[in-house]
Amino acid sequence: MAKATQLINNEVFRAYATYAAIVLLKMMLMSLITAYFRITRKAFVNPEDTASFGKGESAKKYLRTDPDVERVRRGHLNDLENIVPFVGIGLLYALSGPELSSALLHFRIFTGARILHTFAYLIPLPQPGRGLSWAVGYAVTFSMAYNVLKATWLL
Amino acid sequence: MAKATQLINNEVFRAYATYAAIVLLKMMLMSLITAYFRITRKAFVNPEDTASFGKGESAKKYLRTDPDVERVRRGHLNDLENIVPFVGIGLLYALSGPELSSALLHFRIFTGARILHTFAYLIPLPQPGRGLSWAVGYAVTFSMAYNVLKATWLL
Amino acid sequence: MAKATQLINNEVFRAYATYAAIVLLKMMLMSLITAYFRITRKAFVNPEDTASFGKGESAKKYLRTDPDVERVRRGHLNDLENIVPFVGIGLLYALSGPELSSALLHFRIFTGARILHTFAYLIPLPQPGRGLSWAVGYAVTFSMAYNVLKATWLL
Repeated sequence: MAKATQLINNEVFRAYATYAAIVLLKMMLMSLITAYFRITRKAFVNPEDTASFGKGESAKKYLRTDPDVERVRRGHLNDLENIVPFVGIGLLYALSGPELSSALLHFRIFTGARILHTFAYLIPLPQPGRGLSWAVGYAVTFSMAYNVLKATWLL
Repeated sequence: MAKATQLINNEVFRAYATYAAIVLLKMMLMSLITAYFRITRKAFVNPEDTASFGKGESAKKYLRTDPDVERVRRGHLNDLENIVPFVGIGLLYALSGPELSSALLHFRIFTGARILHTFAYLIPLPQPGRGLSWAVGYAVTFSMAYNVLKATWLL
Repeated sequence: MAKATQLINNEVFRAYATYAAIVLLKMMLMSLITAYFRITRKAFVNPEDTASFGKGESAKKYLRTDPDVERVRRGHLNDLENIVPFVGIGLLYALSGPELSSALLHFRIFTGARILHTFAYLIPLPQPGRGLSWAVGYAVTFSMAYNVLKATWLL
């Protein structure tokens, strides 16, 4: 049996690993939703993806943009822009020795906010639903970054 | 001499570091390929990038999209969407104490699949070449996430 | 008081944490700049975002692309393409036991180059300002990746 590193015995690190895996899986889910809409809306971007629909002009009409596909893609890009900083800054935060209760509070609020953001984007909910859920996740990441810089500052 | 942290002596972590560096370098390579196509196809997006081709109308015609450039950019974005979760979840997986043989299996299959995906996208290969290579990388990351959540679960 | 992990006592890791947090915050700032330009230029992409400007046709005219908004978005995507590899490879580099002086040199040059890159993109500065600042950050990440692979190589 391989020896686990000590980090995995640290409760804050375990909480970080759980929530980071959850939000990264949520982000990966956007790829499946994009594929679902591309196939059901018959809206593709690569010529080789439409080959099964026939040759020449009959396949070309499926090379188009679709509002539902574009909406999922914007949600996916927004995830990249926000979940990547959470995963990076969250790791540093988890290693900087916060209280477990503070760490759980940060991780839970961020994860909840991003799940809400996805629903707000895809349904879509009227504003400011999406804007607020985005802002909450942003503020949580900012708060963790402040704690990281306070604990590690070495320029 | 600075003291290396203990992690670097852990074989699973060393394997992770090697493969993570390789796939991140592969992702960075997409920037160079984009630049190559932009220059050879003379297809730019920023007005300041075309200044060396002359002034006014003679430069404006180079502000255009090119199918080859757009194809590389889509491959680059797909890398971001898939390699970022691998790097994040892979780190947690490497720290969760897996067998070296299991870890190597995950890292090798993912890395091979993403290299194939790039060739499938850029050549391009007929489908389902690109789709399958994408799905294999996706499944490997999912399997690592399952192992992370099993080892760390703390909500 | 929760016990901090040992990593946070490692000077190279502390320097990494400081610079990684700074460049990730810089990347997050692009979201705010995008929002600022969307609101001042009245250029939105989601129909629900324009509802406060009125109903039907009067709101529809704000669903448009704006050159300033698109410029910030390109800068944001370029950050994702370059800061993500820095954060990933930089972590592995920091854990591979480099001299503090070498590590600080890498982190400082990268951070300076990316801040310059943002100014060069948004002002915009004439080329090769943006190109050079991009290339410097790219070269620093490449140099760290070389050091990681030299220290960890386990295929």
